[in-house]
Order: sequence, then C-alpha cells, then structure tokens
Amino acid sequence: MADSGKSWVEIDPLSEFSLANLPFGIVSTKDRPEPRVGVAIGDYALDLSTICSGPHKDEELSRLCWGHSPCIIVAPTLNGLAALGGDRVREVRAALRKFLSGTTRPFSINPSGPLPAHIFIPLSEAQMHLPMVIGDYTDFYAGMHHAFAVGCMFRGPNNALQPNYKHLPVGYHGRSSSIVVSGTPIHRPRGQILDPSSADPKQPATGPSKKLDFELELGCFISRPNDMGRAIPVNDAKDYIFGYVLLNDWSARDIQSWEYVPLGPFNGKNFATTISPWVVHPDALEPIRTTGIKNDTPLQPYLAETVKENVYDIQLEVDIKTSGSDMSMTIARTSSKHLLWSFPQMIAHHTIGGCSLRTGDLFGSGTISGPSPEESGSLLEMSENGKKPLALGSSRRTFLEDGDTLVLRAVAGTAGARVGFGECSGLVLPPLS
Amino acid sequence: MADSGKSWVEIDPLSEFSLANLPFGIVSTKDRPEPRVGVAIGDYALDLSTICSGPHKDEELSRLCWGHSPCIIVAPTLNGLAALGGDRVREVRAALRKFLSGTTRPFSINPSGPLPAHIFIPLSEAQMHLPMVIGDYTDFYAGMHHAFAVGCMFRGPNNALQPNYKHLPVGYHGRSSSIVVSGTPIHRPRGQILDPSSADPKQPATGPSKKLDFELELGCFISRPNDMGRAIPVNDAKDYIFGYVLLNDWSARDIQSWEYVPLGPFNGKNFATTISPWVVHPDALEPIRTTGIKNDTPLQPYLAETVKENVYDIQLEVDIKTSGSDMSMTIARTSSKHLLWSFPQMIAHHTIGGCSLRTGDLFGSGTISGPSPEESGSLLEMSENGKKPLALGSSRRTFLEDGDTLVLRAVAGTAGARVGFGECSGLVLPPLS
Repeated sequence: MADSGKSWVEIDPLSEFSLANLPFGIVSTKDRPEPRVGVAIGDYALDLSTICSGPHKDEELSRLCWGHSPCIIVAPTLNGLAALGGDRVREVRAALRKFLSGTTRPFSINPSGPLPAHIFIPLSEAQMHLPMVIGDYTDFYAGMHHAFAVGCMFRGPNNALQPNYKHLPVGYHGRSSSIVVSGTPIHRPRGQILDPSSADPKQPATGPSKKLDFELELGCFISRPNDMGRAIPVNDAKDYIFGYVLLNDWSARDIQSWEYVPLGPFNGKNFATTISPWVVHPDALEPIRTTGIKNDTPLQPYLAETVKENVYDIQLEVDIKTSGSDMSMTIARTSSKHLLWSFPQMIAHHTIGGCSLRTGDLFGSGTISGPSPEESGSLLEMSENGKKPLALGSSRRTFLEDGDTLVLRAVAGTAGARVGFGECSGLVLPPLS
Repeated sequence: MADSGKSWVEIDPLSEFSLANLPFGIVSTKDRPEPRVGVAIGDYALDLSTICSGPHKDEELSRLCWGHSPCIIVAPTLNGLAALGGDRVREVRAALRKFLSGTTRPFSINPSGPLPAHIFIPLSEAQMHLPMVIGDYTDFYAGMHHAFAVGCMFRGPNNALQPNYKHLPVGYHGRSSSIVVSGTPIHRPRGQILDPSSADPKQPATGPSKKLDFELELGCFISRPNDMGRAIPVNDAKDYIFGYVLLNDWSARDIQSWEYVPLGPFNGKNFATTISPWVVHPDALEPIRTTGIKNDTPLQPYLAETVKENVYDIQLEVDIKTSGSDMSMTIARTSSKHLLWSFPQMIAHHTIGGCSLRTGDLFGSGTISGPSPEESGSLLEMSENGKKPLALGSSRRTFLEDGDTLVLRAVAGTAGARVGFGECSGLVLPPLS
C-alpha cells in the first residue's frame, strides 16, 4: 500500500474520502442532470468527465477512460468502468492519485482561489445515483454471530447453526429490482402475517409489517464475468471483485417467518435493499485485511484459500434518528471482520456448479454482528425478537417505526488515510396503500 | 377470440404456429447475424424488420413498430416491444394477422413462387436467441401435485404441504444470469453432496451431481413496471403480462437437499434454466382458459380473483433422447392447468409488499405435475427419488445422464388454430472441470 500522501485538495484528516480511498460513484447536479462517474475526495465529488476531456484534461486519465464506446465516464452506471478489468481500474486509480497528489495544483486548474465547482462538485450539491446496473443480487449469511443468535432464538443453542453452515457459505438469491441508493425513502411493506395473539393463530391476516428491521451488511460488486459452466477458483476470485459498498437488507420479520419454509425469504426481503453511494476499491482496504472467524470444520478444497487474512476490519456503526428527534443515536458498533466466509469464498461457492456471474452483480455478506450484544447488526437480535425494547432517549424501539431514519456508517484506516463508503441511510415511510 | 382464418402462407393444420398464435422471438441468420424480432408462422420466422420498412413495407406495421429510438424491431431483445404495453402489442398482433390473412399475397410480396427467404426465414435456418433481457427471475411452486408428491417423499402425506402453501403462492428468487434459450447445452453441475452410504454420511464431498433433474414449468414475462412500494391488484395483473414460454428449471437434487435449509435452493438451481424461444401472447391462449386446482382455503382479499378460469389447459409433454438412441421417448404428459395459483395471483403476491417488477422479469410456475404418476413433471417424482428406475427402451434412468437431451413440448388449440412455444430442449454435458 503506497503512502496516501498529500493532496492539493484540502482534506480534513478525519474525512473518509482521503487520497487513500478514491471510491467511484454516479453523480449528477442541478446544472448538469446527466448521471456521470464521480470520485469522492474530501468534501467533493470529482467529476471525472471534466478532467478526461476539454480544457482541464489530464492526459493519462483521458487515455485510460475516454473514447470508449459506449462512453464509460458520462454514463449512468459504473458497469463500463468495472468491465475494464482489475489492472485497468488500478491504472485509473493510480492516475487519479497522481493527478490529486502534491502540494500545488496541476497547471490545468486555476492556481488559487476556490476549486472550479464544475470539476469539484461539493458533496452537499451532488445527487448520488445507484452506482451499478445490478444483474443478479445474492445475499449470503456469513455473519456467524448473527446466524447463531437468530438460531438460538428459534431453535435453542444446540441446534442454532444448521448442519451445512460451516461447510458452505449459505446464501439465497435476492431481488435486484428493489435495490436503491442511500437516501431513498422506503415504504413499510404489507404482507401476510400470523398473529399469535389472535383467535385463530394459524390463520394469516394481511397488513403492514409490525416487525420492520434493518440488517447491517457489507456488499461486493463483481467486475468481470465467468463463462457459464466454469467455476472461479477461490484463489483467483479477488480478480472478479470491483469494489465494496455498505448494504442494508431491510427485513420484515413477521412476513418472513410465515413465508420462508421451504423455499427461503421472499416478500420479507424483496421490498427494498439500500446501498451506499460510493464503491470502495479493494486496494483501498488492503491495509486493514485481517483474519475472519475461525472455521473449525475441514473445508472442501474449492473453498480453501491460501491467504489467511481474508476479511476486512472496517469499523461499522448503526445510527437511528426518530421522527420526534433531531439527534441521531448510535445503537450498534461492530467490525466487518466478523464473517465466517470471505467474499472470494462466496464467489467460489456461487460458481462451483457453473453459475455465471456478470459485471455489476452484487453479493451481500449477510448480517454482521459482533460477539457481544452491543455489536448486533439487527433489531431482531437487539430486542430479542421484540421482547426487550431499546431505550432511545425518551422513546423505545423493538422494531422500526414510520418516520425513523436508519443510517449505516463505516470507516477504516487512520487519520489522513481514512476510507469510508458514505452513509447508507433510509427513512421509513408508511405503506403506500 | 377471432377465427384464426386462412393465410396465404401455407401452414400445416397441425403446426403450432398457426395464424391464431403469432408468437414473438429473437432471430438471426447466417446471412444477417444481427438479432432482430421474428414472428413464427407455419414453418417460418417472419422477419418483422423486412415488412416494417423498405420495399415490402406494410404501412400499419411500420406505423406501429418502426421509428422508435432505440429501435424495438432490429433489437437483440423483445423488451422494447413488450414495454409498448398491452394495447399497442395487441395492435401489432392485429396488424400482423391482417398482413398474413387472406388467400392472396399482399402486393408487396412476389405473387407466386417461393416466399422471399429474407422475409420468411425457414425455421430450420433461424438461429433463435434468448427473447428478453431478464432483470429478475422468480420461481414459484404453484404445481400442487408436485409439491404434494415431493412433500410426501420427505415428510409423509400428513405434513406434505407446509402450512403456508394454500395461503400464498410460495416462491423464491432465482438466478437470471444462467437462463438460456432452447438448444443451449447444459453442463452437469458440481457441488457439495452428502453420500448416505459413505463412512461419514454427515460429511459432504464435492463432485458432479448424481441427481440431475428437469422441472416442467410454464414461464411468464412481465410487460410493464410498477412503482416501487405500489402493489399490483390481482384483477389488474393480467395487464402486466407480455407472454408465456415453456421453462425447464434444471435441478440438482443432491446439491439442493444439502444446501437448502434455511434460505432455500441455491446452487441446486442456479447453474441453468432453459426457456423456449417463442413468447406466446396471452390472447393466443384465451380460448383455452380453464379453472385450476380448487383452493379450499379462504383467500386473503389481495389474492381473490373475480375471474374463475384463471389458468390454461395447455397440453404438455416431456421427451428424452438418450445418447445411444436416435429416438425420443415421451416420459410424461400433463396439462398446465394443474396449478393452485394463477400468474395474476403470483404477480399480486410478489408486489403486495411493494416489490418493483420490471419489463422482462420472468416468473416460473413451479413444476407442473398432474394427479397421476404418468403426469409427473420431474424425475424426482417419476423415479421416487431414485428408487424406481424408468425403462427407456434398452436403458434405464433414475436421473439424467450425460448425453441425454431433455425436450419439453406444449400445444394448445385445435387443428388449424394450434398454439405452441417451440420446443424447450437441452443436452446434458459433463462438468467442464
């Protein structure tokens, strides 16, 4: 990992968008509504198109990024950029770092005064869009502390984890159509629910979910496809990763518990999934690689990684702001290292049977909870399925209420070289009808 | 339903591509490799582009189909055509029928001799492509005889159907990346499998599936989107259907049975799904609407249809050709009417929580089996999970072997007005590695 160094862009040492990060996103502005590729740096989204052509052109970035057909920079998604492949994207990041490094501005930028606002869009004025066209979305279940806690709740500690859990990264196919970018409000879902206190507790009724929950997850975007029928070896899998996002897998526990046997979660999950706006490149997380949860089960060869430090120690935080309050309250803090399976293992497992992955496919890690109760990645765990309300100032919560805003945050690295994703937030609205 | 009438195109009365059908597909030829919209008629794929512009132009079809940007006719998918919406697609079908009807050719076509081969592509020379860009694929489980038979096998007749089965159309999110058009060979998947006869029957091993199966299904393509958060009322749902295909949900039973608790099928299903090349419009199936399996459970209001005849009586057939034989053998015959839930009910259920559907989304019905053993839509049922091999001439089958070609066929309607989808076939190849 190269030293993140100095930039002629003024960057707060605590900013999650240091020179060490350089995440990609899709941005537009009121003045120029066409969505295009941006790079977060300090308090700005650098509009990549403005330095790939025209009077402020950087020759190296232009050579790498401009002239593709269709254009990969003035584009509503990062798919084109991701499809360039790992080495080319690395070259783009290196050129960006070179462009932004040093103590004096490049000759193409006015030497003093404010930075040109059409090049450096203040983040407060940047409209962020869903960063990728997502073909298929797969949600795994690799957060073992979460899986164990939920298993204990429903089956007791002796049968908490299913027999397959430590042999393979359990996952299910999710819904890509309802994935939205941070800041998009979410409507509480309606659905079939059993009410154990009703006269006939085996007869469902249709109504708004009373157990709307979040799930704290890390997401991973696929960069390049594999041929159908051809498995991706686990030790090659990192070459198929474009970058990471924060992910909130909104869940309606009451809908889910009635529907999910035998084919898995459906309407309890498919109403909405929120991701952070910025996609962080794996190289930016390289300094915080660490070992995940130790797996005491002998691994099948196709899941055996040579690298031991196969997860990231990103500090995760869950905040909630209730409608009656101006203040956010932090309800959980944990680390993304609490995973039994790495993303390369998930990729290897997903393709062992020949399933084809495509550029822009999204993997969710599964809910990440730490070993202690304050590190819970869902309200299901925190409230013990509604039994123990959380105190939030003057109000209490078992599950989410209309008007609540749920915010996931993440940061890694040290001052001056911090790496984050932007917040992953969503306001809960009542059902539409 | 209008009389299908006569066409100046010579059509065998037994052809599944009568004037009453007019299904859409995506076709290319050696001479002209760009994929484009075709319409099946008799032994031909009518190249729609050739009669929407140029010297053979039909004014009405040109007005309806030509000049869209991007072009919806010279296009690699039917998504543009589907997105026109129900009324416009109906107008296109009416104009096609008008163009093809009568006893004498339109003035734009040479009055005698062979039909121009660039307009009427012989089906034997037409390369068929996947007809839609599929955003999300959802597979339901509405074939109750199948669900019951499989439930009996694993849980006995008293608990064969789960408590939710008659309350809601159970389904799961499938994998869209591995959906292929009829004729595409399939590689047998590898994966984790438990071997009950091994020294340690609880320890999985990784290898090729020994229980590769097919599933006979009807597929349904969505025409237009709903807003996220907004449910589609069941009695409006038919307006969201573009058309139907035959679907083979290839399944690896041994991989599936180890992986599927608690989050549902994954690698046991996601390696391949095959669909027929031709998408049949709902109007073509209107004459064979009938009632499905009676549901004795009180329905939630959002699932209550006013129409009673909510499924189709399409005659379905499953053929197998083994590598050692030139002959196909029919191993099952049934009807698509054997469903507990209709596609409008599946649409209403899928969106009750606000999940967004998009043009090109695909729904599978779930395996369709009739009430008798000869009507089984999977080898799992026919062979009672491998216990009773089927005799196929001189060979026997419990599950599929490498070199087997599995073909689904379907036909509805009477001679002169028959409606089919083209065959849905796939050859089983060994694993790639």
